[in-house]
Amino acid sequence: MTARYAFFISDSTGITSQTLGNALLPLFKETQFHKVYLPYTDSIEKADEAIRQINEAAAKTGAKPLIFDTIMNPEIRDHIAQSKGSLMDIIGTFLPSLEKELGSVSSYQVGQSHDNPSGERALIRMDAVNFALENDDGMKTRYYGDADVILIGVSRSAKTPTCLYIAMQHGIFAANYPLTEEDLNKGELPKSLREHKNKLFALTIDPSRLSDIRQQRRADSKYASIKQCAWEVKEGLFLYRKLGIPTIDTTSISVEEIATQIIVQKNLQRRV
Amino acid sequence: MTARYAFFISDSTGITSQTLGNALLPLFKETQFHKVYLPYTDSIEKADEAIRQINEAAAKTGAKPLIFDTIMNPEIRDHIAQSKGSLMDIIGTFLPSLEKELGSVSSYQVGQSHDNPSGERALIRMDAVNFALENDDGMKTRYYGDADVILIGVSRSAKTPTCLYIAMQHGIFAANYPLTEEDLNKGELPKSLREHKNKLFALTIDPSRLSDIRQQRRADSKYASIKQCAWEVKEGLFLYRKLGIPTIDTTSISVEEIATQIIVQKNLQRRV
Repeated sequence: MTARYAFFISDSTGITSQTLGNALLPLFKETQFHKVYLPYTDSIEKADEAIRQINEAAAKTGAKPLIFDTIMNPEIRDHIAQSKGSLMDIIGTFLPSLEKELGSVSSYQVGQSHDNPSGERALIRMDAVNFALENDDGMKTRYYGDADVILIGVSRSAKTPTCLYIAMQHGIFAANYPLTEEDLNKGELPKSLREHKNKLFALTIDPSRLSDIRQQRRADSKYASIKQCAWEVKEGLFLYRKLGIPTIDTTSISVEEIATQIIVQKNLQRRV
Repeated sequence: MTARYAFFISDSTGITSQTLGNALLPLFKETQFHKVYLPYTDSIEKADEAIRQINEAAAKTGAKPLIFDTIMNPEIRDHIAQSKGSLMDIIGTFLPSLEKELGSVSSYQVGQSHDNPSGERALIRMDAVNFALENDDGMKTRYYGDADVILIGVSRSAKTPTCLYIAMQHGIFAANYPLTEEDLNKGELPKSLREHKNKLFALTIDPSRLSDIRQQRRADSKYASIKQCAWEVKEGLFLYRKLGIPTIDTTSISVEEIATQIIVQKNLQRRV
């Protein structure tokens, strides 16, 4: 396995360059990447420091460091290009095409910052996160009318992280309800959920994976036993099928993927 | 204001294309964008449906829709390129440069999927989210030893969303503690925090914005009154300065920006 440095450089938070890097670098399985993050590189002085680090990494490894850069200021960007790295110039690549296609000059020219969501966008996300927190884990059921989607599933099937991700990333209002042993024994949903059947989406998980996760929380308990986990998962799946509730297996997929699948299958509208 | 369609097309979740679009499109303030998301476009048939929608949008607006595309399969990507849209081909632009620089072929060729984080990455993020939830709002203080950072601030100063974001995006373990009236009156931190002073980071907020936020939660309460908010914010700032705790004003910046500032100032290591 060879080693290579990868720099993520931005004059703002650097989220865009990181996201692109996270999508592309895992495709190169024979290379191990040392990642260096340099957000807020917004002056020639800071660019000089970035260049120093890049050149040092180049000397150390004898290979060009990769640079994923989203610097808006062309002067600083051109400066970084002088380093001994291999530049993936995200803004410089796409901004000119966009300006040409839209027939207008991007507002960076007049001093605007990028990837700083507008106040409205930030507020919607904050509202959605607060909704997810306040309607987590079946704590309240009276606001289900305001939910865009309600996730159901047995304890520790990834409902909470999914709700939070979907709120933070997409501004969607997501509640969740953990199915209890009583629900599963009865083989039916509580009344509060039956009223909102069209909003339901179920998460399921491999029983042995579930048992591992529960062991971390309550070791050697009935709750974490493989027998209990297998029973809950089986009864849950039976219920979802009986009621025709769309279901996704969360065992080996990322929270991004769970969220996107839910959005697609329920045809949810992103608010941000 | 002119209107333009923007398509985000991926054979996976589409998070990468959305992130890039969210960074670039707000720079064009004179254009209103209708955003269409087409994740899981992973077959020629689905690409045909995408093309149909793109061409329909082109006919409707008389302008080329923008396409931000992260499709890995070159055949499907080339197919989309036949549409009447203006293509920002993210993978096609950067992957060949990376392959050349790294001297190896990306593993997509052998059927791997992109932006699906490895199991380990997913587990770390899940652990970090659970840590944030379990150590939210001062509920527990005994795990502060395990925290990478502990956010403090008055109620509703954006501590919880910041902790969750930092956990989800960066795998960092963040706890938070809301300063109480008692803490502020005493002008000192509780003992549980004093032991971890080097981990503390304070969030502050404009008092009238804070009052607005609190009004939504408890209208016409003392808690939401501008007088109370102004007092809490002032006493909080006094305390942070006295103790030399780094502080950020969250009033008009995004949660991404708050998180990145904290990471930079505390020199935190991203775990994912």
